[in-house]
Amino acid sequence: MSSPHVLVLFGASGDLAKRKLFPGLFSLHTAGLLPGVRIIGTGRHSPGTDEEFRASVEPGGAGEGWAEFASGIRFVVSSADDGDDLAAAVADAEQELGDGVRRLLYLSVPPSAMEPMIAMLDSTGLAERAHLVLEKPFGSDLDSARSLNRAVLGTFAEEDVFRIDHFLGKEAVQNILALRFGNGLMEPVWNAEHIAYVQIDVPEEIGIEGRASFMESTGTFRDMISTHLFQLLGFVALEPPVVLDADSLHEEKAKVFRAVRPLDPDRVVFGQYEGYREEDGVDDASDVETFVAIGAFVDNWRWKGVPFLLRTGKCLGATRRTITLGFREPPLAMFPGEADGAPNELVLELTDEPRITLDIRAKKPGPELSLEHHSLHLSFGGENSLEAYEKLLLDAIAGDHTLFTSTREVERLWELCDPVLADPPPAHPYAQGSWGPQEALDLAGERGWRLPE
Amino acid sequence: MSSPHVLVLFGASGDLAKRKLFPGLFSLHTAGLLPGVRIIGTGRHSPGTDEEFRASVEPGGAGEGWAEFASGIRFVVSSADDGDDLAAAVADAEQELGDGVRRLLYLSVPPSAMEPMIAMLDSTGLAERAHLVLEKPFGSDLDSARSLNRAVLGTFAEEDVFRIDHFLGKEAVQNILALRFGNGLMEPVWNAEHIAYVQIDVPEEIGIEGRASFMESTGTFRDMISTHLFQLLGFVALEPPVVLDADSLHEEKAKVFRAVRPLDPDRVVFGQYEGYREEDGVDDASDVETFVAIGAFVDNWRWKGVPFLLRTGKCLGATRRTITLGFREPPLAMFPGEADGAPNELVLELTDEPRITLDIRAKKPGPELSLEHHSLHLSFGGENSLEAYEKLLLDAIAGDHTLFTSTREVERLWELCDPVLADPPPAHPYAQGSWGPQEALDLAGERGWRLPE
Repeated sequence: MSSPHVLVLFGASGDLAKRKLFPGLFSLHTAGLLPGVRIIGTGRHSPGTDEEFRASVEPGGAGEGWAEFASGIRFVVSSADDGDDLAAAVADAEQELGDGVRRLLYLSVPPSAMEPMIAMLDSTGLAERAHLVLEKPFGSDLDSARSLNRAVLGTFAEEDVFRIDHFLGKEAVQNILALRFGNGLMEPVWNAEHIAYVQIDVPEEIGIEGRASFMESTGTFRDMISTHLFQLLGFVALEPPVVLDADSLHEEKAKVFRAVRPLDPDRVVFGQYEGYREEDGVDDASDVETFVAIGAFVDNWRWKGVPFLLRTGKCLGATRRTITLGFREPPLAMFPGEADGAPNELVLELTDEPRITLDIRAKKPGPELSLEHHSLHLSFGGENSLEAYEKLLLDAIAGDHTLFTSTREVERLWELCDPVLADPPPAHPYAQGSWGPQEALDLAGERGWRLPE
Repeated sequence: MSSPHVLVLFGASGDLAKRKLFPGLFSLHTAGLLPGVRIIGTGRHSPGTDEEFRASVEPGGAGEGWAEFASGIRFVVSSADDGDDLAAAVADAEQELGDGVRRLLYLSVPPSAMEPMIAMLDSTGLAERAHLVLEKPFGSDLDSARSLNRAVLGTFAEEDVFRIDHFLGKEAVQNILALRFGNGLMEPVWNAEHIAYVQIDVPEEIGIEGRASFMESTGTFRDMISTHLFQLLGFVALEPPVVLDADSLHEEKAKVFRAVRPLDPDRVVFGQYEGYREEDGVDDASDVETFVAIGAFVDNWRWKGVPFLLRTGKCLGATRRTITLGFREPPLAMFPGEADGAPNELVLELTDEPRITLDIRAKKPGPELSLEHHSLHLSFGGENSLEAYEKLLLDAIAGDHTLFTSTREVERLWELCDPVLADPPPAHPYAQGSWGPQEALDLAGERGWRLPE
């Protein structure tokens, strides 16, 4: 981080700030990665004195470093209508920090609140010298996303806008890039000639956990598919960029999204777990989907004909974040003995401790030349790895867009998703702890979904 | 094993019989894989009574099953000039076993003794209904190999001849085939477009261990290169056979050997470990090579330009049997961070407990998108695996030629090796415990030899 920063967190008394942002900032500070920073929390309602605010966001087990770090944290009331106090507080902080100060404005607010907020940032001059970080969702359909993007880009340059998609901060997503492009073995087989299917599977064991109003208003398709899962698809499917920098990656991802075939309604399955309608705050007749599975295709030279199977949902049999590449079958008839049925798969687990598994066939020990299934594992220690939000905060401060999404990508993804939202399929009921409705299992055909171990 | 067999072991009081063949046969018997067998040891000198012979070949720790197994073992004196007693003993054993008995004649004798022995087998009728197993070496140059093959094929059909090369019994050699052809990921990259080099490395820590006369008369080139190492090269380099059966494999290996470029004298390095000439039984001025390294090329479409580096020798820094495939480098310039220098390698260790290692690059945990080296390992338990000689004995009984070498292969390999033997390079001295003379290290160029962990 080259220059000192004033960080302004909108929605600073919210859940995300407490769970992720303050712990992340403190952790970066402790690691010496965050010099010269003043943090100003802001929101419509005062949480009390600065001391009370600091205490309210102190992470559990923060230890003795916290007091010194927290002494630079303030809270200032602001709203879309009145940003004067906030502007003054930022000016004060900047004076303390000296020359060359930059601003990081972090908007952890609902999509509907974003446009008015941006107008305020413009009118108060807070937008000057600022990087703007936006929490997803970026709009709720193509029209609202376009409107929001117009407002954002009326005030900020694209290069100063950072749309967070917290999946993308994971080490393992970057590992996709490292694995594909750092290895002479991988890229040559990373195409339709050698890959039969790709599965991007993000099942969750938990239900809505009290977030009924969010689920009822947003649904799983908007929350997960149009953002996280398609972003992962983008990283898996993109052409080799000239350099692994932000511009090149955005360009290549946008090309992938342009090549995604309009979604076939017969290959979009919605589900709702049994008991969802009985949850507190959920409509008795709700048809909101808590589960989505999609069979998508990328109509370009590299991926012609390869199904990209996307699945995510609540109350499923396991919690996982996996990308599975299934390789085409060799002519197994050449083996005189038996050949176990599982095709080669490369499985990337995008957890906090990323893991790569390569499932191969090898000779079964014994007199026959038969094949059996083996797995090669590679686990990455978490020692040096940054938590997702830490990395994203650092990148937004440093101006590195690699893991953020561009206007073009966001709008193209809504373009793909809008027809589904305009005419959503019925949400089939599924048992809690299952793998979703039968219609979703059928999407994967005979080979089935890769079930997490 | 479909029919009962009489096994006749020539050289039955020799070292190999005691160390490998009898323990192997007993182990197969114990595993229930060897029903209906009578074993007759034979040689020019009687080792005593049958009881004494049985005791002399009893494996350490054989346990209680041995007595019952050994009761079917006899010893009969025979020579190239007189096989009558042996023929009578075989006839007796066959009568005991009943109808449809076959014979396995196992010639564990020096190459010079083989031709006269085969004449005796012919004249006594012992060759009838028999599989003939020959221990390597098969001749000592092209002329002697041709002469031996003429004698063998004058009496036996090619399909009844089994030339043993004990390396080829290893599970892991078959694993090469399983790995290449059982996996959609491997075969597509198994060629010059994606592989930069192949190393076949069989260093040994031990010296000649009392076998001075063998080393002095044979040398490492004849002993190892013209047989084992080139056979491994054949299995690594062959085109996909229609079926993984013996005929198809021999055909494809023979094609590889025909495509091997005549060896470039500048790429054949001989070495002799310091102190070799002081060993008991070694000539004070011996220039016999205890080490050979070769840079070979296979001039076909698949392997054009890929160096195959072969190395083996005594008194080296480690004992290993590895095949290493080095993949070509991706354009690492695309990585914004540092990229560790080691290219992807697939390492097959052909030990009794075979291991496959895949060296890849993955993201270094932390804020940078840098690469670091990781290894994926796959070890095979030895539980069900048969010892090399056990498997070869079983295959010779069953008539499976997959792991044996054909007349055509043997003669082509001598054709490749003869010019080196006719005008051998000087044997450079090298320190014990080293990796051979500098000239050999230089063969591998900048990347160097893969050094075993």
